[in-house]
Amino acid sequence: MTFAAVRTGSVQAPRTQAPPARVVITGVEPRVDCGRYAAKRIAGECVTVEADVLADGHDLVRAALLWRRAERDGGEWASAPMEPLGNDRFRGAFTPPAPGEYEFAVEGWVDRFGSWRRDLERRVSVGQSIGVDLRIGAAIVREATKEASRTGADTDARRLEEIATVLEGDGSEGERSVLAAGAEATALMDRWGPREGRARTEPLRIIADRVRARFGAWYELFPRSFGPDDRTHGTLRDVARLVPRLAGMGFDVLYLPPIHPIGRTFRKGRNNAERAEPGDVGSPWAIGGPEGGHTAVHPQLGTLEDFDALVAVCKEHGMEVALDLALQCSPDHPWVKEHPEWFRHRPDGTIQYAENPPKRYQDIYPLDFGCEGWRGLWEAVLGVVRFWCGHGVRIFRVDNPHTKPLALWEWLIAEVREEHPEAIFLSEAFTRPKVMKELAKLGFTQSYTYFTWRNTKRELEEYFTELTRTEMREYFRASLWPNTPDILHEHLQQGGRAACVERLILAATLGATYGIYGPPLETCDVRAREPGSEEYRNSEKYQLRHWDLDAEGTLGPLIARINRIRRENPALQRDDTLVFHRTESEDLICYSKSSPDLDNVIVCAVNLNPWREVWGTVELDMAALGMEAQEDRTYQMHDLLTDARYTWRGARNVVGLNPASSPAHIFRVRRRARSEHEFEYYL
Amino acid sequence: MTFAAVRTGSVQAPRTQAPPARVVITGVEPRVDCGRYAAKRIAGECVTVEADVLADGHDLVRAALLWRRAERDGGEWASAPMEPLGNDRFRGAFTPPAPGEYEFAVEGWVDRFGSWRRDLERRVSVGQSIGVDLRIGAAIVREATKEASRTGADTDARRLEEIATVLEGDGSEGERSVLAAGAEATALMDRWGPREGRARTEPLRIIADRVRARFGAWYELFPRSFGPDDRTHGTLRDVARLVPRLAGMGFDVLYLPPIHPIGRTFRKGRNNAERAEPGDVGSPWAIGGPEGGHTAVHPQLGTLEDFDALVAVCKEHGMEVALDLALQCSPDHPWVKEHPEWFRHRPDGTIQYAENPPKRYQDIYPLDFGCEGWRGLWEAVLGVVRFWCGHGVRIFRVDNPHTKPLALWEWLIAEVREEHPEAIFLSEAFTRPKVMKELAKLGFTQSYTYFTWRNTKRELEEYFTELTRTEMREYFRASLWPNTPDILHEHLQQGGRAACVERLILAATLGATYGIYGPPLETCDVRAREPGSEEYRNSEKYQLRHWDLDAEGTLGPLIARINRIRRENPALQRDDTLVFHRTESEDLICYSKSSPDLDNVIVCAVNLNPWREVWGTVELDMAALGMEAQEDRTYQMHDLLTDARYTWRGARNVVGLNPASSPAHIFRVRRRARSEHEFEYYL
Repeated sequence: MTFAAVRTGSVQAPRTQAPPARVVITGVEPRVDCGRYAAKRIAGECVTVEADVLADGHDLVRAALLWRRAERDGGEWASAPMEPLGNDRFRGAFTPPAPGEYEFAVEGWVDRFGSWRRDLERRVSVGQSIGVDLRIGAAIVREATKEASRTGADTDARRLEEIATVLEGDGSEGERSVLAAGAEATALMDRWGPREGRARTEPLRIIADRVRARFGAWYELFPRSFGPDDRTHGTLRDVARLVPRLAGMGFDVLYLPPIHPIGRTFRKGRNNAERAEPGDVGSPWAIGGPEGGHTAVHPQLGTLEDFDALVAVCKEHGMEVALDLALQCSPDHPWVKEHPEWFRHRPDGTIQYAENPPKRYQDIYPLDFGCEGWRGLWEAVLGVVRFWCGHGVRIFRVDNPHTKPLALWEWLIAEVREEHPEAIFLSEAFTRPKVMKELAKLGFTQSYTYFTWRNTKRELEEYFTELTRTEMREYFRASLWPNTPDILHEHLQQGGRAACVERLILAATLGATYGIYGPPLETCDVRAREPGSEEYRNSEKYQLRHWDLDAEGTLGPLIARINRIRRENPALQRDDTLVFHRTESEDLICYSKSSPDLDNVIVCAVNLNPWREVWGTVELDMAALGMEAQEDRTYQMHDLLTDARYTWRGARNVVGLNPASSPAHIFRVRRRARSEHEFEYYL
Repeated sequence: MTFAAVRTGSVQAPRTQAPPARVVITGVEPRVDCGRYAAKRIAGECVTVEADVLADGHDLVRAALLWRRAERDGGEWASAPMEPLGNDRFRGAFTPPAPGEYEFAVEGWVDRFGSWRRDLERRVSVGQSIGVDLRIGAAIVREATKEASRTGADTDARRLEEIATVLEGDGSEGERSVLAAGAEATALMDRWGPREGRARTEPLRIIADRVRARFGAWYELFPRSFGPDDRTHGTLRDVARLVPRLAGMGFDVLYLPPIHPIGRTFRKGRNNAERAEPGDVGSPWAIGGPEGGHTAVHPQLGTLEDFDALVAVCKEHGMEVALDLALQCSPDHPWVKEHPEWFRHRPDGTIQYAENPPKRYQDIYPLDFGCEGWRGLWEAVLGVVRFWCGHGVRIFRVDNPHTKPLALWEWLIAEVREEHPEAIFLSEAFTRPKVMKELAKLGFTQSYTYFTWRNTKRELEEYFTELTRTEMREYFRASLWPNTPDILHEHLQQGGRAACVERLILAATLGATYGIYGPPLETCDVRAREPGSEEYRNSEKYQLRHWDLDAEGTLGPLIARINRIRRENPALQRDDTLVFHRTESEDLICYSKSSPDLDNVIVCAVNLNPWREVWGTVELDMAALGMEAQEDRTYQMHDLLTDARYTWRGARNVVGLNPASSPAHIFRVRRRARSEHEFEYYL
């Protein structure tokens, strides 16, 4: 091992005359997979960084947080001081001003002047003579003088020289030590003092997203079902007319399944029949026909101009369109002829269709992303995304990303975000947990989750504790869906309307980002294709439907109320403050979310049993809610769903929830602030 | 972001025609600080490695563990298969044959042949035609043929070609699919089959030590106290005569405080008096006089030949000598004149003595490891260690390593171990937790701990859980000392003999490596210099003492018995299986250790109150002891200290311990193996 090979912290010591850095920096947070991936944050919000910064001996160690926008050629680092928290831990913060990728690093050094002054004070306090020590201090100040001169800070340099001269001069030891401890010397030496044994970490990365990446309500619908009746193919213009209603209900994102031409070869019929009957519309995910592929609009839906008009209407109403990026082709997709090299060929000369042996999906050809012409294919996919970005789309829901190379996504998302840092990618990967995590790490802004299959209290608590209390919180943003066109869970099928309400409220309060496959959920249409199936009967995936969303008893008004509660309460706009509270009953789940300043605290209690009323004690974790001092005092619980107000006392209170009438409380804890960290409760 | 910048796992994709690796490898264990440091293991013992290895899609993924001795120029990698554990986790193992540094890496790839064959079986099971699929398989086998040919494995290549020919030939589909699934095809394809989308991690490091690094009993003494009486300076020859007794008591290591010439300038007197009286012998840590420095033997102790003789006697008795490496100089050390540049100079021309302001230690000059001539100084220190290695020393107890640069130790220890992989360095750093951890990470084989100050049940359980259940277990080997020449804890001062026995048993059973500052502990001499001090009265650090180790009532026989128990029970020779068990009383602590195969299980129960008998229920964690199936059966607890045998039933049993007679049980759980994982207990 040579001297040059001695590394301190993660910093390689340069092969210079100076010894390796004295300072070691470890345990930097946030950090995903040892820094391989970026942690996710929101632009305009503070990013807190912590690190262990330590050195041998007893000298004072100091640290700074360096940060900058990540650019190809780097840029100037901004610097913020880090505060010591004790036990060699330091904390600093910065705020990324706009969406984009940022780098940060931690720098640590031995503060010779500060250490000297601390020791000087100790000597003075026991009356030791400090003449020689003051001369040592003067020498340290003179080093700072040199540094200031070198940088052209001549005024500072002159003043430092004056201080050094006084320190080693003939004044009284008392006067001289007071000068050394003064504010002026401190400020100048903080700026110019020698930073001995300095170490700096490798840069770590932060992705700063816009707020929509963290908080939003999505509505999914099939445009073709919004024609004037169930025999007439709906259009994008029909959907545009629906936008004011959706905006009025508080939705932020309108998500459309693929809007491209649909293949004819091996087209599936109604209820996924192997063969389509004449007039069957086919699955929107069998993308491509003679009319075009991934950059074309299905003629029956309208034109590209109609799409632009839909985007414009959404924008007018504060919403935006999310498109489905499904990287697969029908046998009629133009690429099949134009780029046969992008598909896998079988020894009999046919193109390999999709399959999950022994199941075959002959209406779909997968793309071979590892083929010889992979670069062309990858660029073509990027071209598709750029095309829709050019039409105002900034949100992409990616279909089955786990069946395409992970590296494709890392590259694609980075490329798109370099041009459009506000772009959002939602990963629709329902697969093995580590693959889902990897997709989130490598760049997906948001991810579908197992929420749909987590129905018991224990399942929900375990899963959401993992999402919000492990390293996942740094990179995995959950998007919660009570239902999707592919998943109609048994719980909804059996629980009916009460289960729909229960799962809707769970999704909208457990998840700052949630979505619904709207029409069936609003109308509580939970009929399965057959028993044991998660497919809808007469699924819109294969046929037109017609929905009466304004009929008596639909969930529209409730959904609107919930979305309004979400918008009015910052606690529900984030997931990192989620806390579960103990309850007596397996059917009763209770959790809270709060704003970081504890000004807005929401407590939810939900009946998980759609068939039975539940009564049970809820035991609030008072400390987590900043209420530890009020263990035996009363406070008000304001149910934002019903506007009822309850008086609670202490941690343990009883809740009763009837699935038919009110399956959940969404309480706002009402209290009046007395000081920053102490509250006085109403009543 | 360019294609080349797409990395998968920790592997940078090469800028070639091939797409980036499909496989991602994360979560590799063992790994210290993201791979910055080596994990510690024992040569000749199995190193288990786990990793998450995953890829997109549904193809079979496989993984291999690569390992080799770490050498300047690298070397051939050995390879071992890794077994899938489920949930994308894989496990493999290798055994480092000898002490030294090793590297390992994990490689993962998509198994095209295996995936193809799995799918083939699924097709066959539902009676699909597989003609085309067999031709696809033939093509995969032909790729393996090419690989085998390329490597010169002509026999394998020929056989593979034959298999390919049959697969695409005219035989029945059944016969051909049987051939594809056969053992021969499997073995050949495991060896030569295409490894698609292959990824490999950066190498991680393992330090393999000899067993003594994990397990050993140390005895510390001041040689000068073993003269014929308390007025005559003892010698190394006197100590050599003591070796058979220490070996007989079961000690492995004889640790000597510095044996070098002692300075005269500012020499300390008895009980750390500021000035020595004539005849005072001074502190051995004030190293260096006109007779020499760190490579000289104090003339009053004898000669280098006497030292060599002591090393030889130890070796003869299965023991070895540990030397104290204290990198500081008395003002009379030869380096002060020969290398004034290695010391810090004050503006008044004097050399800076050691201080912790306002305290001054004028008998000691610290070395300035960051001085301009640091390379020369660092090499000189290495020279000192090499000198004593040349005299047969392989264990160094390093004094206050935390007051010297961390990088010095990383470099020094690596240099020494490159020549002497069996070298052991014990860090005597009693300082802030993260600095102690850093020293262990960067290379110290063993570390002193806070054990000495952890006296209550809660303190002990918390501390030893941290040591054995967090990342610390990978790099921090605890060396437990009930007492040292610097630390006579209040608990011993007040608890007297019972406390000495209690702390001795705790150290020897909680720690596979433990040590005692022998003479005071054997004789229970726990008198403090003054109340509130952790210093001994008439400390050997400043004067000669005379010890009657064979007097009535000393702890010698008990210590010998404990060391024999340690040697006879593999459970006590490791720390990684430590488990604490619940007890009813704060004065009663209970813990177990076991051999990995659960063949040897030791349960200790210790009374932590030296003044009072304790009775209480112990509730064993039966699962941790491999006894879950015997919850309601009886078994035998054999107290190895007293040879008494107790019959226990189930998890909860009562224990009574009298500090005066038997403050602890060291039980061996007696049972007869019925099968590998099932035991039948003795009545």
